[in-house]
Amino acid sequence: MKKPNVLKETKHILIRFSEVDSMNIVWHGTYVLYFEDAREAFGRKYGLTYQNYFDNGFYAPLVDMQFEFKNPLQYGDTARIEIEYVPVEAAKVVFKYKIFREKDNALAATGSTTQVFLDSDYKLVLYSPDFYTEWKKRHNVI
Amino acid sequence: MKKPNVLKETKHILIRFSEVDSMNIVWHGTYVLYFEDAREAFGRKYGLTYQNYFDNGFYAPLVDMQFEFKNPLQYGDTARIEIEYVPVEAAKVVFKYKIFREKDNALAATGSTTQVFLDSDYKLVLYSPDFYTEWKKRHNVI
Amino acid sequence: MKKPNVLKETKHILIRFSEVDSMNIVWHGTYVLYFEDAREAFGRKYGLTYQNYFDNGFYAPLVDMQFEFKNPLQYGDTARIEIEYVPVEAAKVVFKYKIFREKDNALAATGSTTQVFLDSDYKLVLYSPDFYTEWKKRHNVI
Amino acid sequence: MKKPNVLKETKHILIRFSEVDSMNIVWHGTYVLYFEDAREAFGRKYGLTYQNYFDNGFYAPLVDMQFEFKNPLQYGDTARIEIEYVPVEAAKVVFKYKIFREKDNALAATGSTTQVFLDSDYKLVLYSPDFYTEWKKRHNVI
Repeated sequence: MKKPNVLKETKHILIRFSEVDSMNIVWHGTYVLYFEDAREAFGRKYGLTYQNYFDNGFYAPLVDMQFEFKNPLQYGDTARIEIEYVPVEAAKVVFKYKIFREKDNALAATGSTTQVFLDSDYKLVLYSPDFYTEWKKRHNVI
Repeated sequence: MKKPNVLKETKHILIRFSEVDSMNIVWHGTYVLYFEDAREAFGRKYGLTYQNYFDNGFYAPLVDMQFEFKNPLQYGDTARIEIEYVPVEAAKVVFKYKIFREKDNALAATGSTTQVFLDSDYKLVLYSPDFYTEWKKRHNVI
Repeated sequence: MKKPNVLKETKHILIRFSEVDSMNIVWHGTYVLYFEDAREAFGRKYGLTYQNYFDNGFYAPLVDMQFEFKNPLQYGDTARIEIEYVPVEAAKVVFKYKIFREKDNALAATGSTTQVFLDSDYKLVLYSPDFYTEWKKRHNVI
Repeated sequence: MKKPNVLKETKHILIRFSEVDSMNIVWHGTYVLYFEDAREAFGRKYGLTYQNYFDNGFYAPLVDMQFEFKNPLQYGDTARIEIEYVPVEAAKVVFKYKIFREKDNALAATGSTTQVFLDSDYKLVLYSPDFYTEWKKRHNVI
């Protein structure tokens, strides 16, 4: 049996002045945006953005997100975000993330997010929507 | 002839840690939220919130906003925001704002915003919607 | 032996227009601010704010944060945030959170955060700073 | 006499999902970040970033910012930000901005910002710091 693909994308981000707090390090809440940027980059690469969800009649809100902060990022740093799709049976979209400080390759943060599907009436969709099942097949991640 | 009313509201805000930048003062972009909080407080007092716009079939996006920064606010400070409705002939909602640092009553910032009306198709509404004309009459601000 | 105290605080928040995304629900990243607001309210009640850390020569950055989203919040909703201090042996400050939608008491989100201590040179502090040990004794949470 | 240079930079930005509000257009407060991104790109091109200010012993907070919104940006749009340095006699750094919607080249927003210099004691600097006077000469913008 063929091993499932590992789908990954990498995104580089320059740390903004406004993302840094009075400790001179990136405020923890900013990492939510970094994860979003990575998800968006992944989505454009593989065809799985918020827009793709909408176009198929679904929303895909987060039900879970986790962050571990290891080393600080500072204004002027470049961060490298690595996002990886985590195959699961359920009607969910799961990603894990690693963020690195480019200048010394130190691990800045790790984390994960889980999204579910809602239909256009905001009802939870228990089985994978067809477009998502096909997407999984097409990318061999089932 | 009766003089038009001056409609005002005051809102107090405690400065958050995350609103402060690496200079240890409130980041300038945060004032957009302070103005929004003041508009919302005004709207609840006088019946003119985003929800009221929606319920009458309109959006009211900003077309103009201006800020002047006079004295810094810091983490732990309380800010007092004074918002005043500015009557204009056009189909617009104009507010001006003053933000004070409570501890010494120093003027922290001033500014203004202008909103227009869009209908549910996002078309600009050139004449005041009925609900807004009635609101103006009711509050004697015409 | 005396049972340790359970330290709690409750904070109410009115959902802002700008906190809502194009799905008409509060954007997941906004919950980072709600948790911060709850921590700040707790800190003012019990004497454990960012300012208290600074005044004692320490920073207390987050090393971990987790969120589970259960039911959406919308513009105009009031959220009730319940924060509880979680006693641990280590030199850490751990909180858990529950956010409720006031209108129907539905659970909107749960989560937790963990903070560590850095000294003024940004070095990790392995043993609880004196001020924190005394704080724990004073509140009987050891 | 030689005409002063016109210093410009252009920055492209992909609109994030989280930058869009419930009207499905970019929330007005987000433009503060777009202006900041443009200033940072300009600063890296010409050597005038926040970091350059710090390294020379100064802060450069905003004292003024203005925005006019012309046409909405939406999730998935690309925005092109054009920033231009505005030469002034005073010890100030003034920029003007134009933001375009790439897909149809519509003008999305215009605006301006003014920064002053504070020394490391947060005192207003009335005369241009040496490093800034030299920067102006070097770029022939006096």
